Amino acid sequence: MADIYHQIGVNADIEKAYQALTTLEGLSAWWSKTTGNTVEGGKLNFHFDDINIEMSIAQLIPVKKVVWQCVEKEGEWKDTVITFDLEQAEGQTFINFSHKGWAKQTSLCAHCSTKWAVFMLSLKDYLETGKGQPFPNDVHVNHMDH
Amino acid sequence: MADIYHQIGVNADIEKAYQALTTLEGLSAWWSKTTGNTVEGGKLNFHFDDINIEMSIAQLIPVKKVVWQCVEKEGEWKDTVITFDLEQAEGQTFINFSHKGWAKQTSLCAHCSTKWAVFMLSLKDYLETGKGQPFPNDVHVNHMDH
Repeated sequence: MADIYHQIGVNADIEKAYQALTTLEGLSAWWSKTTGNTVEGGKLNFHFDDINIEMSIAQLIPVKKVVWQCVEKEGEWKDTVITFDLEQAEGQTFINFSHKGWAKQTSLCAHCSTKWAVFMLSLKDYLETGKGQPFPNDVHVNHMDH
Repeated sequence: MADIYHQIGVNADIEKAYQALTTLEGLSAWWSKTTGNTVEGGKLNFHFDDINIEMSIAQLIPVKKVVWQCVEKEGEWKDTVITFDLEQAEGQTFINFSHKGWAKQTSLCAHCSTKWAVFMLSLKDYLETGKGQPFPNDVHVNHMDH
């Protein structure tokens, strides 16, 4: 098994951070164009050029926690779980991110770890300046296909 | 135990990437001001404002692999190992990074995962444009101290 963890401190209200993780507008502003149903149990679709990632919202604890279950039927993201834990501390909002349950440590997992950091920085920019760098305006780090 | 992995693809020669990981000038250009002895078995010191991280160069395989053993006597980096594996593929140079052997998954480990991605992007910029963002010009993501 392999897990990815990131943490960022953001100079923004925790309520605003929670909105960025739980609304279609917010998610589309820092990750990628998002469609779907934003309630607990609802399905979200994140649209990229050639793929469409589907997540089920497994848990929502207002202003505290967001958990997504990846519902892909194949591929390395199958059965993985993404969690955002929010915490106010030291005059900031901290976002503790994890993407857990990878079957094993792979090249794609390492790539996604780097890429999640890129999107956490986009989320930070969105929350602090109003402008993120969602796909396809994200920083490209490339991926080794083999 | 917890491990951090990242991967970046860089539009630069693999020899240049290896130099950026094995010379004082290169390391100082993307991570932080570096002093020490760059041979296998040598000690490197990475200087930050209030801390100084010491690493022993555990392995150097020219144009392929760099391994550092952290020789800190205390703290969470104690006994951890940092590895850079270089590979040419798809017309690029891929840098596969790991920071392994954390005693457990902690807040600092999550912070460092994000921060290593920031420095991998700095390394990519340095290799592709000649200018990285080493400390103290790095992107600040903050760290939750408790």
